[in-house]
Amino acid sequence: MIQPTHAGRVWSPVITPFNDDLSPDPQRFAAHCRWLLDNDVGLAIFGTNSEANSLTVSEKCELIDALAEAGVPGERMMPGTGKCAIGDTVALTRHAVGHGCAGVLMLPPFYYKGVSDEGLYRYFAEVIERVADRSLKVYLYHIPPVSQVPLTLALIERLLKAYPDNVAGIKDSSGDWRNTEAVIREFSAEGFQVYAGSEHFLLDTLRAGGAGCISATANVNPGPIAELARTWQEHGADERQAALSRLRHVFEGYPMIPALKAATALYGRDEPWFHVRPPLVELDDAQRQGLKAALDEQGFSMPGLGA
Amino acid sequence: MIQPTHAGRVWSPVITPFNDDLSPDPQRFAAHCRWLLDNDVGLAIFGTNSEANSLTVSEKCELIDALAEAGVPGERMMPGTGKCAIGDTVALTRHAVGHGCAGVLMLPPFYYKGVSDEGLYRYFAEVIERVADRSLKVYLYHIPPVSQVPLTLALIERLLKAYPDNVAGIKDSSGDWRNTEAVIREFSAEGFQVYAGSEHFLLDTLRAGGAGCISATANVNPGPIAELARTWQEHGADERQAALSRLRHVFEGYPMIPALKAATALYGRDEPWFHVRPPLVELDDAQRQGLKAALDEQGFSMPGLGA
Repeated sequence: MIQPTHAGRVWSPVITPFNDDLSPDPQRFAAHCRWLLDNDVGLAIFGTNSEANSLTVSEKCELIDALAEAGVPGERMMPGTGKCAIGDTVALTRHAVGHGCAGVLMLPPFYYKGVSDEGLYRYFAEVIERVADRSLKVYLYHIPPVSQVPLTLALIERLLKAYPDNVAGIKDSSGDWRNTEAVIREFSAEGFQVYAGSEHFLLDTLRAGGAGCISATANVNPGPIAELARTWQEHGADERQAALSRLRHVFEGYPMIPALKAATALYGRDEPWFHVRPPLVELDDAQRQGLKAALDEQGFSMPGLGA
Repeated sequence: MIQPTHAGRVWSPVITPFNDDLSPDPQRFAAHCRWLLDNDVGLAIFGTNSEANSLTVSEKCELIDALAEAGVPGERMMPGTGKCAIGDTVALTRHAVGHGCAGVLMLPPFYYKGVSDEGLYRYFAEVIERVADRSLKVYLYHIPPVSQVPLTLALIERLLKAYPDNVAGIKDSSGDWRNTEAVIREFSAEGFQVYAGSEHFLLDTLRAGGAGCISATANVNPGPIAELARTWQEHGADERQAALSRLRHVFEGYPMIPALKAATALYGRDEPWFHVRPPLVELDDAQRQGLKAALDEQGFSMPGLGA
């Protein structure tokens, strides 16, 4: 049975910095990753909020290499590796396994809609068989609002039965607590690690027996989120949860990725963080000012960033 | 002003054959392409019905190379090149331009939903600027039922204005005739080529001033579809259109891609055509028998295939 350490309870889909020409910036990326690790937050690089699908496979492999060279241990990385084409998913997953990554977060193939559980089972099975490595730990990525391809309980059950050594957990970004609760109830006793897709559900997830959360806003508010994950059984946890949710609500009032990057640019005093790749668009001046005012009102800061 | 020849009025998103190990089969692919060309149908390889997003960029580049080596002229190819990451789209588009392809059919980036026209404009603009070739002809690919990312009239107008030499047309797979009609009315006078995404709308499209159709079922029924495109102004066109639609309705009763491949396997007596890549699943025995019975009832055949 796999048990997450405290340090494994909160992960962030790390935002990806781009230069003026939209190429990735590995140094700025490593610096942000180091800041997250210093705040006890793991690196779920190449998630939805990392603009992962706006990066090529080779760009992603190079960024993992850059983190490894910068001294980031593989056990603190959980790269997103799920692509529409099996060959791409296998290449990226192998690269992650080669770096000793703690796990990989795997989207289903997301172009075709209305596909069957049988087809999704074959996809994941094919990837696992091709990678063929006992150290591979797959975290399934359930994010129907974006992927439009949900992962059912029946599919999880079948995959767990076929590949108990490789199917390690799930990130549930459905935003539907009843689903998260059902997955925890059904599978967590067997060591399957269930992460909520937002810290709104962090306390509920831990109390129900889940593993923690993998959250976009852990990019900007890592310390307090990780603190709740450490102290969830202590006095005042509900108040700490409420404070996390209040801050997250501010970000939810804007397009999430541009807002995370804007906060990082503004509070880290580092302009290039504003850049996003198309089809996303950076916040305009009015949005930046509105975001900053709302965050200041909550006493928000990103201590130690850019230091 | 670009005018399609008769031969340019019907294109097929060519189905992609796989070996038992799911690798692409370039010989079988070239043979099917040759059969389509013999039937006056152009090769919109790497469309939705080609399982394009289940192929890696390098697999697609190799398949284009294989067709070129087999003597297929670039002017009869219109590869799909739109991927979520700009770097992938540019690489594949450059490869197509290098082979002198008639055009490329470009999906918008389809992972993020609810993106703005501004973001989509920047995506297409960035691709066109990076490819930087006057011979590049982009056909926009509007297929909201699958991509979930629609292309608006305002976006088309802005792209046409900025890149009149490169933005050549659209495939409208919305299934919404009012949209197709509106695009023809707005832009076809300037030479913008509007293709319906199904032969259901072939006659209506040609009568309204559109260019033709790019249709999945042109994989299996190329001769009669191309015939209507040649003879649409002659007596009996409505009856010919009705016959095309009756046959297409049979295929629409099944998952389209597995059904196209099953028909090709059954009527071309060539088993490997049954293979699809996950997340798709081939037709089961009952479905194959049902499809065959329904097609036989319509006197369906694929003359010359596998000959």
